[in-house]
Amino acid sequence: MLNVAILGASGYTGAELLRLLAQHPHVKITSVTSERSAGKIVSDLFPHLKDCKLTFEPLEIKKITKKAGLFFLCLPHKTSQETVAELYKAGKKIIDLSADYRLKDTAVYQKWYETPHKFPDLLKKTIYGLPELYREKIKDAQITANPGCYPVSAILGLAPIIGKHFVDINSIIIDSKSGLSGAGRNPVLPFIFSEANESVKAYAVTTHRHTPEIEQELSLIANKRVRIIFTPHLIPMDRGILSTIYVRLKEKVDLSHVQKIYTDFYRKEKFVRVLENGYYPTTKAVKGSNYCHLSVFLDTRNPRSQTLIIVSAIDNLLKGASGQAVQNMNIMYGFDETDGLLNLPAYP
Amino acid sequence: MLNVAILGASGYTGAELLRLLAQHPHVKITSVTSERSAGKIVSDLFPHLKDCKLTFEPLEIKKITKKAGLFFLCLPHKTSQETVAELYKAGKKIIDLSADYRLKDTAVYQKWYETPHKFPDLLKKTIYGLPELYREKIKDAQITANPGCYPVSAILGLAPIIGKHFVDINSIIIDSKSGLSGAGRNPVLPFIFSEANESVKAYAVTTHRHTPEIEQELSLIANKRVRIIFTPHLIPMDRGILSTIYVRLKEKVDLSHVQKIYTDFYRKEKFVRVLENGYYPTTKAVKGSNYCHLSVFLDTRNPRSQTLIIVSAIDNLLKGASGQAVQNMNIMYGFDETDGLLNLPAYP
Amino acid sequence: MLNVAILGASGYTGAELLRLLAQHPHVKITSVTSERSAGKIVSDLFPHLKDCKLTFEPLEIKKITKKAGLFFLCLPHKTSQETVAELYKAGKKIIDLSADYRLKDTAVYQKWYETPHKFPDLLKKTIYGLPELYREKIKDAQITANPGCYPVSAILGLAPIIGKHFVDINSIIIDSKSGLSGAGRNPVLPFIFSEANESVKAYAVTTHRHTPEIEQELSLIANKRVRIIFTPHLIPMDRGILSTIYVRLKEKVDLSHVQKIYTDFYRKEKFVRVLENGYYPTTKAVKGSNYCHLSVFLDTRNPRSQTLIIVSAIDNLLKGASGQAVQNMNIMYGFDETDGLLNLPAYP
Amino acid sequence: MLNVAILGASGYTGAELLRLLAQHPHVKITSVTSERSAGKIVSDLFPHLKDCKLTFEPLEIKKITKKAGLFFLCLPHKTSQETVAELYKAGKKIIDLSADYRLKDTAVYQKWYETPHKFPDLLKKTIYGLPELYREKIKDAQITANPGCYPVSAILGLAPIIGKHFVDINSIIIDSKSGLSGAGRNPVLPFIFSEANESVKAYAVTTHRHTPEIEQELSLIANKRVRIIFTPHLIPMDRGILSTIYVRLKEKVDLSHVQKIYTDFYRKEKFVRVLENGYYPTTKAVKGSNYCHLSVFLDTRNPRSQTLIIVSAIDNLLKGASGQAVQNMNIMYGFDETDGLLNLPAYP
Repeated sequence: MLNVAILGASGYTGAELLRLLAQHPHVKITSVTSERSAGKIVSDLFPHLKDCKLTFEPLEIKKITKKAGLFFLCLPHKTSQETVAELYKAGKKIIDLSADYRLKDTAVYQKWYETPHKFPDLLKKTIYGLPELYREKIKDAQITANPGCYPVSAILGLAPIIGKHFVDINSIIIDSKSGLSGAGRNPVLPFIFSEANESVKAYAVTTHRHTPEIEQELSLIANKRVRIIFTPHLIPMDRGILSTIYVRLKEKVDLSHVQKIYTDFYRKEKFVRVLENGYYPTTKAVKGSNYCHLSVFLDTRNPRSQTLIIVSAIDNLLKGASGQAVQNMNIMYGFDETDGLLNLPAYP
Repeated sequence: MLNVAILGASGYTGAELLRLLAQHPHVKITSVTSERSAGKIVSDLFPHLKDCKLTFEPLEIKKITKKAGLFFLCLPHKTSQETVAELYKAGKKIIDLSADYRLKDTAVYQKWYETPHKFPDLLKKTIYGLPELYREKIKDAQITANPGCYPVSAILGLAPIIGKHFVDINSIIIDSKSGLSGAGRNPVLPFIFSEANESVKAYAVTTHRHTPEIEQELSLIANKRVRIIFTPHLIPMDRGILSTIYVRLKEKVDLSHVQKIYTDFYRKEKFVRVLENGYYPTTKAVKGSNYCHLSVFLDTRNPRSQTLIIVSAIDNLLKGASGQAVQNMNIMYGFDETDGLLNLPAYP
Repeated sequence: MLNVAILGASGYTGAELLRLLAQHPHVKITSVTSERSAGKIVSDLFPHLKDCKLTFEPLEIKKITKKAGLFFLCLPHKTSQETVAELYKAGKKIIDLSADYRLKDTAVYQKWYETPHKFPDLLKKTIYGLPELYREKIKDAQITANPGCYPVSAILGLAPIIGKHFVDINSIIIDSKSGLSGAGRNPVLPFIFSEANESVKAYAVTTHRHTPEIEQELSLIANKRVRIIFTPHLIPMDRGILSTIYVRLKEKVDLSHVQKIYTDFYRKEKFVRVLENGYYPTTKAVKGSNYCHLSVFLDTRNPRSQTLIIVSAIDNLLKGASGQAVQNMNIMYGFDETDGLLNLPAYP
Repeated sequence: MLNVAILGASGYTGAELLRLLAQHPHVKITSVTSERSAGKIVSDLFPHLKDCKLTFEPLEIKKITKKAGLFFLCLPHKTSQETVAELYKAGKKIIDLSADYRLKDTAVYQKWYETPHKFPDLLKKTIYGLPELYREKIKDAQITANPGCYPVSAILGLAPIIGKHFVDINSIIIDSKSGLSGAGRNPVLPFIFSEANESVKAYAVTTHRHTPEIEQELSLIANKRVRIIFTPHLIPMDRGILSTIYVRLKEKVDLSHVQKIYTDFYRKEKFVRVLENGYYPTTKAVKGSNYCHLSVFLDTRNPRSQTLIIVSAIDNLLKGASGQAVQNMNIMYGFDETDGLLNLPAYP
């Protein structure tokens, strides 16, 4: 059994890791940390995890390093930066769910996160944890940077075609709709029920921190600098991200050709499904699971140019966070990639 | 007092007309029709309208024409076409909430609604009922075609700038999010609570019938043929449409310049509000009211081109349907344009 | 025009007062206070009240007393106690939406609110602001204690029969279901969307502070000490309280007889509606309005005793708080009792 | 591997069986029937079950009997009655999720279901499938009648104390709150999103068909005729039943004594959890799982009598239907009772 620790385990991504790992055949959770819930038993904080009798402890790096071989970090950015470095020094494996090790360019990191990155050397050793792109590298990674929730939905939607000659890479617009769990388990006024329910709004227009992360990965695939427009929205539901992605084409293509590109790209993937022609992804059909559902549409009405419309749906806490992290662990340790992740969505 | 009849009054737009007109100082509802609820008393079908003791009757055109001077039509398309013609012949005034008289080009109508338009002459006499564009013409209209819900949110968001030289009119993408009441008061499987709740999906991608309506009006303002991409989504709430609109610019502009264009354009409008810089429209802030909230953002990150992002919020049943219809009536009859429409949104 | 001030106006009851009073024909709001939002303009805090350009000020009693004749207090208990006393001394009229002046027995107050009541003399002069019971006294009140939201739904449901000989007054169980706006506009973890949505729970079982308030009023009507069991629940919606009330009978009665008692009791009331036999109250049918809907059922299956089941529905922020307060003001000032309150529910 | 068939598999209980059994280590689904979806592939109807390539077929009893050893029946009552009989004759094992074999008294069945029961002999051989009461009998059952959703929440809440001398068995009131999935996957007007959302209502007051089922089981435990009052409510969420149960006591007891009775009663149960003092069950904490959470409270305020308040929470589709059915199967076939059922709730 692999001993794992979850740092910052009292939020929603922590709770999901606790749930998924409790059902994992090869893993034992040995330690959970939380500053605000230190001293509490997990099952008291999370009654849905009735059998988990671990006690949250404050994060003391020296104590914690001894307790596990693999560390999941659900810490705020900046804090995570330091903790990753210390665990790395101690020879531990790390899956970092924060944003601190996702951006390879420290200048970009500093600009968007308003703090310098102190460990550029570690950044170089970190693998971006999207198995559909980097499975081979993740196998040998000591540090895996787990992708952001919006980036997962956007990159999986664009990866198959972003490098194709028929795509106008300067035209990409990503309009994402997220449930409220993405805002975390924090008592903040705009996220109380009465404010968020029965409403929809855009937020962080042109300024969301997931923008450079999406651009970095799309640029790497396209081998050209890609600039996107990304607009996140909050909608009144617990879980799920639906991204509607618009890509203008430089030349005409057939929809069936594009669909084949997608089907081929994801043929061997266990967690990405390209829906048949005419089916629409819904977040409900992936809720509680690690699946991503994708559909591709083609708008041919404008005589001057065609536009691809790609719709992708994920559960922001699974494929968008904790499920993805478990998938990365499975790859890093040579477990079956689906271990602990085969729960089907509970519908409705 | 003006005598009015509501045809097809047993759906949500009918219920909203009944509510708004009951509070109107110059109007008396003399007749309501409904095929499926014929014989029922309004207050039995709609307990929230406890004092309305009118009885739904089946639509018999000869009987109904005598009962009112103004007719609100909440009928299905095709049925509405014929009924409008008969009421017109009888010299009545008509506000048609169906789609039948919105499209001026009968070929476009036939293509999208899959039925011919039999009354091209009447189409020419019909005014598109968006007061912010056609107030003067509505004053003298005998037939007013009340706009679709998505078109209201899209056209109000684009009208101030669509004709400007700096706009690339071939670049417009409208990504709209609607509550479920837009799907009507019909027992259809995808709209039952358990299917629609806790989910978001796109639908009718590239094929929604409001597309040509938006294009018609934008083309008229721009004085050029405009082709848009329009993607509607259903999100789990009762009311509201939020449209996020993307417009690529042909040359650089200042955000403050664009905001001034919007503020000036709507300076005298009672029901359209351009929010101050940094404020985000939410559907909750307009729910139950006839207001439209608008914000404008500018993405300057792509060195090759700027993109305007306009966000508009309306209540689909008010400014998107029945409130709009009452506003049109007020204009047609010389009432104060806000009569019956000054209810503020009830928050939360 | 009557000048009114709203103290503690930055919560949901304050927002509703601002909305209702803006539409009132005889009232002018001259001042709004809020500690946490002092210095902000109302329309910035509440975009749905776009035209309200008043500025929240901190509560300074000497400044505020000069500004109005009537004061609505939406302050926390204990604070309200003192402010009421000072305004009373200054000869002002007061409608107190807090719990501080509802309980006539200071010992009961101290027990449930864990603080002494310093103004027993004022308590004696205060009228409990439920017009259906105390309309005549409210006319001359200088201090009106606006009832709690659960008590309104419970007392209106029980008032017609609580004094009847066939009622076992020791048997009463009130099971109430409330939307989240009842929890206020406060960033508290259990009330964030992700915690409260898709869930239902009981809370404060046997300990809710509205219990003695309900008992006080029922005891006064019955002219006997009444002890109830009251269980509140939170359900995932913005507004509304549905109370299901169980009353065991000491002798057999006919349902039609009981229904007639209810109909007679509320015959002249504008805001209480006894539904016809077979109709069920829903919170949706009263949402956004000052109405209370009531239905009465009789369980005759137990051969030993019959049980009345009364279901009542109100909007917790209207008839359960701010609408009730406006109704009380109308009575205190001789306005039409329905002024500012005739908004019908917006359905759905 | 055990071959199982699911009859009437296109509803929500069918979908949940498909989900749970797909993850079961000892089961293979060989056949699914549905009249309305005959000819469709499961994954087309239920995109969340992307890998299930079975085709719905119409129910032909001769064909179907050959395909499996165990049959789950999710058929409407009356239809189920006949099908059970035919499968029984063919020597098959049956878990019937309909109401047809739950009531042992055919006269009671006929009264509440308005149709005669044609197979009284089979009724005698049927075991009521609540393992916490009848585990030993279920082991040998050929026909198991899977309990109704409300009855599970009510009976588990009352079983530990209903036979105790301190309980007034004529006083029991069960006030239940259910999510909308309990209403099934049917396009019916009151259950469309816009009607059911943002609302709560009682329904079938004094007439719900689960009443005699609850009474039958409570009477058997108490060994006396028990009559209850049962009021179901619909609240706007997908899943979950919370039952608040009121039991008047004939003599005084300590809360800790009652809590010990509950803890002892369920000590060995895997799926029933008695929460610690002060914790409240929520439906969210059991959503998607087969668990039942219970809390007990004692109201001592009324000097004449004490009242126990028991709150129970289940997922109506799991412990209230399909999870319960799988648990019954596990018992009938000697599998581990938790096989296929150890999914933890996904929170939030």
